[in-house]
Amino acid sequence: MTSQLPPHVQRARRPEHKELRLAAILEAARVLALEKGVRAVTLTDIAALTGINKSAVLRYVETREDIYLRLTAEGWKRWASALREALGPRTDGSPDELAGTLCRTVVDQPLLCDLLAHVALHLERHVSADAVLAYKLAALAALDDMTEAGTRFQPALDASGTRELIGTVSLLAGALWQVSTPPEALARLYADEPRLAHAAVDFLPRLTSSARALAAGLALRTG
Amino acid sequence: MTSQLPPHVQRARRPEHKELRLAAILEAARVLALEKGVRAVTLTDIAALTGINKSAVLRYVETREDIYLRLTAEGWKRWASALREALGPRTDGSPDELAGTLCRTVVDQPLLCDLLAHVALHLERHVSADAVLAYKLAALAALDDMTEAGTRFQPALDASGTRELIGTVSLLAGALWQVSTPPEALARLYADEPRLAHAAVDFLPRLTSSARALAAGLALRTG
Repeated sequence: MTSQLPPHVQRARRPEHKELRLAAILEAARVLALEKGVRAVTLTDIAALTGINKSAVLRYVETREDIYLRLTAEGWKRWASALREALGPRTDGSPDELAGTLCRTVVDQPLLCDLLAHVALHLERHVSADAVLAYKLAALAALDDMTEAGTRFQPALDASGTRELIGTVSLLAGALWQVSTPPEALARLYADEPRLAHAAVDFLPRLTSSARALAAGLALRTG
Repeated sequence: MTSQLPPHVQRARRPEHKELRLAAILEAARVLALEKGVRAVTLTDIAALTGINKSAVLRYVETREDIYLRLTAEGWKRWASALREALGPRTDGSPDELAGTLCRTVVDQPLLCDLLAHVALHLERHVSADAVLAYKLAALAALDDMTEAGTRFQPALDASGTRELIGTVSLLAGALWQVSTPPEALARLYADEPRLAHAAVDFLPRLTSSARALAAGLALRTG
């Protein structure tokens, strides 16, 4: 694949063109990660799909991991917006409904689900302190936003319980995503090996089951 | 560091010597991972500490990831034994106590905590189907063992609830370990940056809080 960008973006001499170039890099990284998984995408792949060379990409981002950390920050923001939208104006919801909505809205973001486990393990380790700080502040702002929306939605969990629910669901979603999207060889084992019949994990039902139980338990603590 | 192994192990011509050689490789990998984290250990490091060359190591194991997958299987077995030991002969325990004991016993195994997040993300992807199958069967056997011990310990959660509690605690422990053991640059940020004051995670209290809430919620479902 080659770049679809017009020539003025290829040069990117003016600030708004630089923004366009960065957006094109992030978009290429997003497309590739959705196609073959975050782990398999290299900076060379991203450069090729953006239509510029690798050293040019590195004028806009620090590393491959910087690109994916920016996309994770975007993912958190999108998740927060989607949750707020899904919860709507209600204030009489239950922790159980909040848990279900949290799970549905994160599952709608497969890129975020894939990225979540990579953040602490890889992404934060291959960028500057400034890049980590920018990511952390964006993720914390989204978590604050979700906590505010989730606390308003239902009266049973206070802000601290709501925040613990959201944080724990995000950790579980990250871990479960990796477990429930096995490589081909392992998927074949799950299908062919009777002793592993119950080992395969179905992402949304498994996440939702634990999230709902967690929400119910947190509500007992608050009450 | 050089090998402490006697010459008959260095050669490893007889089956029992091969077992010793494999054990020495696993032990070197364990020591190195506890020292600098699983992510940072290479096969070259492991070979050097075992006192043999890399191609010799590869006569006993498939890959670096095979070594760590074997150590994860061992970790599951140790966790199961430790849980059984800690729960003792009681049958009048509570889900809350079970959750607390699960968390304490996994925290006692820092190598397992570090390995858990690596399994699906890396380890299972760089070994043969046979090696994955052996790992899965060992981990499932340990999970069965823990489920049996946990169900006997307390009457409130049935086997299915107990199994979900243990599985979810293992996923959360894996994710939280990576978050709560940040690289040096990030640890400095947590210490120096007031806006991140609440972002640092204290592993055992955070894990225990969610595990106890989850156990309480699962007990409501069973009851």
